[in-house]
Amino acid sequence: MWHQTEVRLRPRPRGFHLVTDEIFAAVPELRDVNVGLAHLFIRHTSASLTLNENASPDVRRDFAAWFDRAVPDGAGYFEHTLEGDDDMPAHIKSSLTGMGLLIPVAGGRLALGTWQGVYLCEHRDSGGPRSLVVTLFGE
Amino acid sequence: MWHQTEVRLRPRPRGFHLVTDEIFAAVPELRDVNVGLAHLFIRHTSASLTLNENASPDVRRDFAAWFDRAVPDGAGYFEHTLEGDDDMPAHIKSSLTGMGLLIPVAGGRLALGTWQGVYLCEHRDSGGPRSLVVTLFGE
Amino acid sequence: MWHQTEVRLRPRPRGFHLVTDEIFAAVPELRDVNVGLAHLFIRHTSASLTLNENASPDVRRDFAAWFDRAVPDGAGYFEHTLEGDDDMPAHIKSSLTGMGLLIPVAGGRLALGTWQGVYLCEHRDSGGPRSLVVTLFGE
Repeated sequence: MWHQTEVRLRPRPRGFHLVTDEIFAAVPELRDVNVGLAHLFIRHTSASLTLNENASPDVRRDFAAWFDRAVPDGAGYFEHTLEGDDDMPAHIKSSLTGMGLLIPVAGGRLALGTWQGVYLCEHRDSGGPRSLVVTLFGE
Repeated sequence: MWHQTEVRLRPRPRGFHLVTDEIFAAVPELRDVNVGLAHLFIRHTSASLTLNENASPDVRRDFAAWFDRAVPDGAGYFEHTLEGDDDMPAHIKSSLTGMGLLIPVAGGRLALGTWQGVYLCEHRDSGGPRSLVVTLFGE
Repeated sequence: MWHQTEVRLRPRPRGFHLVTDEIFAAVPELRDVNVGLAHLFIRHTSASLTLNENASPDVRRDFAAWFDRAVPDGAGYFEHTLEGDDDMPAHIKSSLTGMGLLIPVAGGRLALGTWQGVYLCEHRDSGGPRSLVVTLFGE
């Protein structure tokens, strides 16, 4: 059983955003997968996806605090500066977290841990809407 | 062909631990996959999985040395501090390495490179046992 | 439908290299996948794969600039130094970017975003040829 669809996420400010419910509301076909996997893929190079703590908003703020220190806007050694001080850091942060997630599905539900949720990592100041390809497969 | 099972890893101290054999001893069904993939997924937000060098213990110690410097315990800019100085760094380190691995399977065996092994990255001082979902699929 | 093959990439200098076309020229079977996924897996621990911007060479130079600062060659706290100053950083950089990529396939083509391309991240000064396992699956 294969099901593939595009999901568009509304624009969000720079930062880390919990989007599990928004994504999976768009793929009710998940209920039909008894054993399988759900693949989420973001079709961009300046926003990314990760899994992390789904409860405290301060965790998501601390993610932003750390990433902004680790990959500073406008660092003097960047050559690729034409698209703004937040552009090259956005590319690097995207590759550090990754553009795809593969999540096990069991009994028609995501087999996430209790505290796991999907983060949209928006690394641009004005990234606009973001497009995902969601692929469900299994039996 | 689909096979999905939970594998529990015994508690380990903070650090990077080679767990390839412990995980795959629990899924003898791997032998039945001629062409396919093995997906490992950790159901936590303060421990993670990666692939790296399976021989020298000093490589795993150096991983810890680097990650502990890159994401310092108790950094002053973290807000999420209630669960201890090692908690917020554990979340960030987990997203840097990732919660899932997808490994090709060929002829009933993992198609890993000679030097590749699976690391459990335990980022908490006392993380306890860790739960994985292992999904084998293929033909 | 399953198709699995080894693809060897010619030696490249240390740095980030766009290899999308070189890899997929070796798997014309992609055209036969209507809905599915393409998995790329590098069988090494000192080179890795990521997706990022496929246009400007300065983006790839800036990746190298950032990674070389974040994980410095010959850092004094590394124990694993026998294989050279670039060896331990190569292991860490590999785990930061990851050894595998899973890309959706639709209508016989990769469903990449307009700006996305596959990078070979060569972290050694003389890494030699690199071996990938490419697995296509779908229907």
